[in-house]
Amino acid sequence: MVNYPNKKNPLVGIKKIEGRINTTGRGMNLEEDINLSNKYFLAQGLANIHKKPTPIRIVNVQYPKRSAAKIVEAYFQTPSTTDYNGIYRSRYLDFEAKETKRDTFPFTNISEHQINHLADIKRHGGIAFVIIAFLLRNEVYLIDASIIVSAYRSGRRSIKYAEINEKGHLIKQGYNPRLDYLKIIDQVYIDRED
Amino acid sequence: MVNYPNKKNPLVGIKKIEGRINTTGRGMNLEEDINLSNKYFLAQGLANIHKKPTPIRIVNVQYPKRSAAKIVEAYFQTPSTTDYNGIYRSRYLDFEAKETKRDTFPFTNISEHQINHLADIKRHGGIAFVIIAFLLRNEVYLIDASIIVSAYRSGRRSIKYAEINEKGHLIKQGYNPRLDYLKIIDQVYIDRED
Repeated sequence: MVNYPNKKNPLVGIKKIEGRINTTGRGMNLEEDINLSNKYFLAQGLANIHKKPTPIRIVNVQYPKRSAAKIVEAYFQTPSTTDYNGIYRSRYLDFEAKETKRDTFPFTNISEHQINHLADIKRHGGIAFVIIAFLLRNEVYLIDASIIVSAYRSGRRSIKYAEINEKGHLIKQGYNPRLDYLKIIDQVYIDRED
Repeated sequence: MVNYPNKKNPLVGIKKIEGRINTTGRGMNLEEDINLSNKYFLAQGLANIHKKPTPIRIVNVQYPKRSAAKIVEAYFQTPSTTDYNGIYRSRYLDFEAKETKRDTFPFTNISEHQINHLADIKRHGGIAFVIIAFLLRNEVYLIDASIIVSAYRSGRRSIKYAEINEKGHLIKQGYNPRLDYLKIIDQVYIDRED
């Protein structure tokens, strides 16, 4: 039994949607923006990528008559994989998405399980990366998993904005899709191979 | 708000593990057997395939001091995708796993969302299939999604054992892995292309 990953209240994201305005203008909720982008990609027939549900350990369920089963005791579990995976142009994609309010991405934000998972996906020939949103800059980057994995495994405790800006790829933001990260995947992973 | 898919008690699987004996001898719990096989494939570095957590709509969470967040009201949601996905030999895999006690596989067992998802995965170049366990025969088949999708979309209400036996592929059962479905994938999907 564990706390919710990063002690974040899972309901916070839901509340945020109603008040999506911050000092950077349009405001940003990374998970929401990725989910809406994925919905757009799915509807357009471009890709099939989904967020995995949060793993929950169910302890007690009630079965009231004539209504839905009600879970009355359950706990958040630590995910052993990443949040997102799917298929794009016949390729397996796998990634984690994280927000930071600072000019650095602290590795306390990501679990060792997730690091090992991303490394394993690359070993199997998949496209693995991390999407990092710098909230105060209103910039979102796609950075290949290998960079995060080797920084993490070298014992570093974080990776600075400057390094992500240099080695990662800025994702174009728009109305629909909100985050056009497939364009980066074309450029960085797929078209390069052709 | 919905009932748990197919009105199955999610705790049943857990209880079953303790009493894994039935009239067919070794007994079978398909989900458990697939999860253990996936764990073996992962540890052996052969594939990285996971079951997605059951989607749950969280309504109320308590945060007791000095202990883990406790979910006190939540409901099962209908999954819009399949239960399993992952990567094997650089290929994206996606499948649903179902048990039946009869000599037929009724389509009430699978949702239209899942049918559409499997069809979409094939369109994107992924390997999509259904694993069906005939409990009374103690036989487990891998059957390509296209066969299930077209039977479903033609308005049929089920698919008979004989048809699955003819068009599907019997999965070898053993101690470790319990269900060697990767061997079928080699034969049916990957080696055929090489």
